[in-house]
Amino acid sequence: MSDALPDAFGDLRARLAELDDLDHAARLLGWDQQTHMPPSGAPARGEAMATLERVHHERAVDPALGELLEGLAPWAAVRDPEDEAAAIARVARRDHDRARRVPADLTAELARASSEAMGVWVEAKRRSDFALLQPHLERIVELRRRVADCFPGADHPYDALLDHYEPGMTSAQVRAVFATLRPRLVRLIEGVAAAAPAPTLPGPFPVAGQRRLALEIVGGFGFEDAGWRIDDAEHPFCAGIAPGDIRVTSRFSHQDLAGVFAVLHEVGHGLYEQGVDPGLARTTMGTGVSLGIHESQSRLWENFVGRSRAFWEHWHPRALALFGDAALGGAELDGFLRAINAVRPGLIRVKADEVTYGLHVILRFELEVRLIEGDLAVADLPDAWSQGMAELLGVEVPDDAHGVLQDIHWAAGEIGYFPTYALGTIVAAQLWRAAQAAIGDLEERLARGDTLALREWLRERVHRFGRTVDPSDVVHRATGSALDPEPLLEHLEAKYGALYDVSGWR
Amino acid sequence: MSDALPDAFGDLRARLAELDDLDHAARLLGWDQQTHMPPSGAPARGEAMATLERVHHERAVDPALGELLEGLAPWAAVRDPEDEAAAIARVARRDHDRARRVPADLTAELARASSEAMGVWVEAKRRSDFALLQPHLERIVELRRRVADCFPGADHPYDALLDHYEPGMTSAQVRAVFATLRPRLVRLIEGVAAAAPAPTLPGPFPVAGQRRLALEIVGGFGFEDAGWRIDDAEHPFCAGIAPGDIRVTSRFSHQDLAGVFAVLHEVGHGLYEQGVDPGLARTTMGTGVSLGIHESQSRLWENFVGRSRAFWEHWHPRALALFGDAALGGAELDGFLRAINAVRPGLIRVKADEVTYGLHVILRFELEVRLIEGDLAVADLPDAWSQGMAELLGVEVPDDAHGVLQDIHWAAGEIGYFPTYALGTIVAAQLWRAAQAAIGDLEERLARGDTLALREWLRERVHRFGRTVDPSDVVHRATGSALDPEPLLEHLEAKYGALYDVSGWR
Repeated sequence: MSDALPDAFGDLRARLAELDDLDHAARLLGWDQQTHMPPSGAPARGEAMATLERVHHERAVDPALGELLEGLAPWAAVRDPEDEAAAIARVARRDHDRARRVPADLTAELARASSEAMGVWVEAKRRSDFALLQPHLERIVELRRRVADCFPGADHPYDALLDHYEPGMTSAQVRAVFATLRPRLVRLIEGVAAAAPAPTLPGPFPVAGQRRLALEIVGGFGFEDAGWRIDDAEHPFCAGIAPGDIRVTSRFSHQDLAGVFAVLHEVGHGLYEQGVDPGLARTTMGTGVSLGIHESQSRLWENFVGRSRAFWEHWHPRALALFGDAALGGAELDGFLRAINAVRPGLIRVKADEVTYGLHVILRFELEVRLIEGDLAVADLPDAWSQGMAELLGVEVPDDAHGVLQDIHWAAGEIGYFPTYALGTIVAAQLWRAAQAAIGDLEERLARGDTLALREWLRERVHRFGRTVDPSDVVHRATGSALDPEPLLEHLEAKYGALYDVSGWR
Repeated sequence: MSDALPDAFGDLRARLAELDDLDHAARLLGWDQQTHMPPSGAPARGEAMATLERVHHERAVDPALGELLEGLAPWAAVRDPEDEAAAIARVARRDHDRARRVPADLTAELARASSEAMGVWVEAKRRSDFALLQPHLERIVELRRRVADCFPGADHPYDALLDHYEPGMTSAQVRAVFATLRPRLVRLIEGVAAAAPAPTLPGPFPVAGQRRLALEIVGGFGFEDAGWRIDDAEHPFCAGIAPGDIRVTSRFSHQDLAGVFAVLHEVGHGLYEQGVDPGLARTTMGTGVSLGIHESQSRLWENFVGRSRAFWEHWHPRALALFGDAALGGAELDGFLRAINAVRPGLIRVKADEVTYGLHVILRFELEVRLIEGDLAVADLPDAWSQGMAELLGVEVPDDAHGVLQDIHWAAGEIGYFPTYALGTIVAAQLWRAAQAAIGDLEERLARGDTLALREWLRERVHRFGRTVDPSDVVHRATGSALDPEPLLEHLEAKYGALYDVSGWR
């Protein structure tokens, strides 16, 4: 087996570079749309993004690319499994096959239907009237089922959709994991509810101070200054435009510290993008491997680092200096930790705490599987939603805006996306446990403000591979085991047991 | 002749929409590069922009587009000359023919050579060492001559290059106009030099105050608030991303009011982009027709409006309130007007005043024509530059950084671009005179802060046509005459004669 790369591999790299360049443009247009674009620019932006996607799709399904990939397959098959070039050829082939399976007409119809539905969703949410969105959602569910039909090999039609966001994951796996998670989260929440309630930070927290604190914290994470920036956005997100060009966004309010935690979350995504092997730049592999693994990074930094005692042992004095004792409800670290880890069952997913969050996701997963199966009609969604929220979180849904209309995902045509939020948190807990084992003094390091050992461990075990490995391989390599909800549950039960002084939950 | 549009025209619109969408993306990537992009993002951005350009070019030269355009030509030829659809077909055909003439290899080679040369230029300018850039510039001149060779029908090889920026303009026309301009500008400057020198505004001018003043001024220009934004950039520019998405940039220094005038200049470009007939959106016609006509708009707002007595009769009190009498050198309008209209021969084009600016351009034009003719070797450029500056402006060039290396244009492969700066100023004067005739009380309006009548007149006579008419038609329609340097010269001679109290220059 020669180590020289075949000429066809050079051709492949050129084609992938072009696809990634088109994606680069699409990512920037998307970032700009949510950060700087004047409102009147929206219609033209929608058209430009649709065109970029169409041009990208045309090239992604080009039969000449298929021939190239087929020609490289025998070569890739006999290479060392760790070989990056072979992995690129292998994953690129999977991408190409996947892209070719869905007819261009169906993709275009879905894009059109989603674009329309997103506009209607804004209005429906404003008026809290699900009936407005209903016909659009019916159309989207129908189109998504037709997409699923393009993958007859899947065990369940939902699997074909899920695979788009979380390659290799199946609904059976998600179901099994959620079956473990659901009852224990419910019990944990019941335990917390019976305990003394957590305090609320009085505030106020001037935005300039929060921004400063966030930047000081992130300054120690090992971001290269010349390679990222932070902007405001209505819904915080992170866009990795290119390896040296990471765009973090946040949204600060003077009422709480949510904006600081949003930065930690988005920087977690950003560190993943920045940590990918530079050799994968301008391939289509130079980004996070799945939404779930991506979310594992954001949740790890936001929650496992950012809401931990060790971390705030270092940063709490700085917060006191910036905001004053009164805003933090006193100078004691204990009260602060209880406040930033308050567990309160609520209506809105994006405002949910570390414990209740998973149940919001489980509800959505269960509903969307039933929608795809045809077991639940779109018209019955609001009722099913209310029933689920009562069962899982014990809250009553007052209206559609605070219920089924709160998220844009379904209107955007995204079905199969939601479970990745919970999968990410599960993986975060597994990685956290593995990192603790690998870095013996991890918490001592955090307590003195040193996050670099953790960042390096994540880069080595997770980040650098980009999309050249499967998500399940990432988990295996880094933790030595398969996807497993146990570390998350043990973490939550231990942490909240101590914080709320509750025991005997299991 | 039926009014129904042929089916092929619909196909053409779809193709032009795609080209414009790709341009939309390219414009945004360019804007971001100069405003927000983290420095480390530069290499990837360069690649992404090159790919967008290549994809655009492929589609622009698609033979199927050529057939479509040829099929539409007989239909377009018999339509009313004012018919927009026919104009779109006609101009699109010219664009296509032009794009097909230059081989893709040559375009790519030029892009690569320019990209390299721009990097070298930064370093050469920093070290003030022309020798570093020389071989790169030699290559660019050679490649540009090969581009010119692709247009054997041109009277002069330079015309083929000039036509790219200023369709229909010839070097003979430019030469004739500059021949009139040159001696009278030189004489005017000599007259000013002999007069009492203009005062300098003492300052300082806090940036926040300048930004506020600029936004208040521009607020009255009729920009739709939801359709534009302003950002900082090292070199101010304006990017029309889409009709409802205009990006103005400026650069403020507390030492002078240059940032305010830069906003007026860039907003002039922006109003042009915003004033194009919305029906031309997503064609390749929905933008300014040429660099010269574009510059006529920016110069008109910056100089003819923004440095006029009438304009400051309204705004000077506001400037006094924002910056105080001392910063403005006293509370008198006369002194302020003399200061913002100071004429001072200098080394740097972008800092030049209204009178000396044209001579900087004339020098560049003369040199680049000689380069293309082969009459001047690149190695001899620095000497020719120094000699020209001495002759035209009476200044001595101390080093390359303040001489031949000051502008990026040649390193960027742009030859034929410079004359459009002066042509724009000439057209601005013609338009100003026509607007004064059409709007009898224009100066009274400006003196009470009303700029809308002027904006409307420009929209009606210049903006709305976009690229559907030739630049010379724009001038004809709006002013009733051909390109003519006389109004500019008369304006300058009258204005500076009064300001410097000099007479008898002619």
